[in-house]
Amino acid sequence: MTIAIAYAAPSAKAPLEHTTIERRALRERDVLIEIAYAGICHSDIHTVREEWGQAAFPLVPGHEIAGVVTEVGPDVTKYAVGDRVGVGCFIDSCRKCEQCLAGLEQFCTDGGMTSTYNDKYRDGEVTQGGYSTHIVVDENYVLRIPDGLSLDVAAPLLCAGITIYSPLTHWNAGPGKKVAIVGVGGLGHLGIKIAHAKGAEVTALSQSMRKKEDSLRLGADHYYATGDPETFTKLAGTFDLIVSTVSAVVDLDAYLSLLKPDGVLANVGAPEDSSTLHLFSLVMGRKTLAGSLIGGIKETQEMLDFCAEHGFGADIEVIRADRINEAYDRVVASDVRYRFVIDIASLRD
Amino acid sequence: MTIAIAYAAPSAKAPLEHTTIERRALRERDVLIEIAYAGICHSDIHTVREEWGQAAFPLVPGHEIAGVVTEVGPDVTKYAVGDRVGVGCFIDSCRKCEQCLAGLEQFCTDGGMTSTYNDKYRDGEVTQGGYSTHIVVDENYVLRIPDGLSLDVAAPLLCAGITIYSPLTHWNAGPGKKVAIVGVGGLGHLGIKIAHAKGAEVTALSQSMRKKEDSLRLGADHYYATGDPETFTKLAGTFDLIVSTVSAVVDLDAYLSLLKPDGVLANVGAPEDSSTLHLFSLVMGRKTLAGSLIGGIKETQEMLDFCAEHGFGADIEVIRADRINEAYDRVVASDVRYRFVIDIASLRD
Repeated sequence: MTIAIAYAAPSAKAPLEHTTIERRALRERDVLIEIAYAGICHSDIHTVREEWGQAAFPLVPGHEIAGVVTEVGPDVTKYAVGDRVGVGCFIDSCRKCEQCLAGLEQFCTDGGMTSTYNDKYRDGEVTQGGYSTHIVVDENYVLRIPDGLSLDVAAPLLCAGITIYSPLTHWNAGPGKKVAIVGVGGLGHLGIKIAHAKGAEVTALSQSMRKKEDSLRLGADHYYATGDPETFTKLAGTFDLIVSTVSAVVDLDAYLSLLKPDGVLANVGAPEDSSTLHLFSLVMGRKTLAGSLIGGIKETQEMLDFCAEHGFGADIEVIRADRINEAYDRVVASDVRYRFVIDIASLRD
Repeated sequence: MTIAIAYAAPSAKAPLEHTTIERRALRERDVLIEIAYAGICHSDIHTVREEWGQAAFPLVPGHEIAGVVTEVGPDVTKYAVGDRVGVGCFIDSCRKCEQCLAGLEQFCTDGGMTSTYNDKYRDGEVTQGGYSTHIVVDENYVLRIPDGLSLDVAAPLLCAGITIYSPLTHWNAGPGKKVAIVGVGGLGHLGIKIAHAKGAEVTALSQSMRKKEDSLRLGADHYYATGDPETFTKLAGTFDLIVSTVSAVVDLDAYLSLLKPDGVLANVGAPEDSSTLHLFSLVMGRKTLAGSLIGGIKETQEMLDFCAEHGFGADIEVIRADRINEAYDRVVASDVRYRFVIDIASLRD
């Protein structure tokens, strides 16, 4: 057993505070990871504030985890002490269903994926996330962070990165394709980088002109403000693929009108409220409205390798742990370019 | 020029009546078709009753046309006098855009497809449909009706058949796939036959138990009533593909819950009112909500050949032309199993 220093929410909506938690003794295939950096994901905030339903407290959030292996169980074959590794949104699944076998563990149909925090293992053990100095994870749910990718900029790739990489890959963003990324935030800024690296012609769509320069710097070929109604006239019938990172309700018919025939509007954000659309917007042009949720272990590794090969991670602002609560408010206000990453060493101060 | 006997709506909402129309003299690539049968499609009714917007009168509906070639233009190479042929929902398009070149003329992006009736050719000529003794069509927009497929049961394939065949083909209905057809009507009954012939495990979903026997006879492996809420519990997570032929607003979240991960809900009916859904229903399981509109010329020919090979056409009720108005009311009341077909010879009486 390992005692880890952590930052936890003691109760719903309460500020996070310094604490300690226990990490289980290593089992046969477990690795003990000393965490170096943990990204702050908007999901962390939704969860600890119970905006997504009841949570179990005390609760240590964090599913964008990067660190170094410091101990391995006796049957571990994939990792060794000293390896640079990451952990994302889930740390277990049934491993046997059609989805798990297909590498889509996030859609495990036998009990679902076990989330990295605010969840229970199949044996009842409560999961606690990455705002902590250590975590113990089965090697099959651990990712390798390639050399050349710093741990700090790698951390947000474990959730934000794979969330946007997966739909871009699944719906074939690449040379000859016109791809739009809606929303230039934690997910969107990585979407621009990834779609550009995949060779697509990338258009960034954001509410105002405020993020134009950033978007072009990140790799966008074009930039339009969705607040300008003319944008929807100018870009009608343009895109093969639109990936929307927006979690507010948007005018789906308007976005669908921007697609070519056979185009895809993939959503990685899901508003709590229902959305409306005319099915006619899909019938004309055989268009697809789809959703996508993070990605499986195999694809997450592929994404990390891809980012390392292309030499980029997330654009981050590193903070000390005692600034987490302030950072939460800034995330809600979209006041970060583009991801907060907690320097976990600061938990020890 | 040919004078054709026809049934036309003289004005919006007026009963259709006997009349004559002119068909243009044959151009180089035109074929003159003596029509034997014309199916009655719900679209015909929506159009002449101006439920889909303003129409131009007098209006001869009909885009499920089967007949025989009686004359060909000098440059026609594909058809000869005596050939059994069909005409579907469109009779021209730009022929040059990406969609036309890809065989998706229905999504022509340069002026759109020219509909078989209530439309204008690029030169301004008004189009008139198949409730008539003759029609003149460019050979590139004419289909061959294979031997062994009677003209009467073939006629509805030109719209209803291709409308349901195209999504079943595009989203890979076939061996090992669980496919649901929602709505057992003109489109749905062909959907059951086609999905079954493609080797899929077919479930028919209809409001009540009323069409169970018919559905099983048509080739469905299973049948459930959507009016029974338990159906949605029992069938949760079951299907790879659902094709909905319903043109009323349905509970999309409920239907999406019936899909496996990566499943597709394809709509060929499009209600006038907007639909609502939670995008979460798509995000969980990377599901697709899509639409589909008829099919291109190449695929329509493939569909006709497929139906002939498998020995089926539509289930029809043949009527004389003087029963068209009565048939319209019965179509609206869903009182036909499963498609009215007009015996065009009766126009000459």
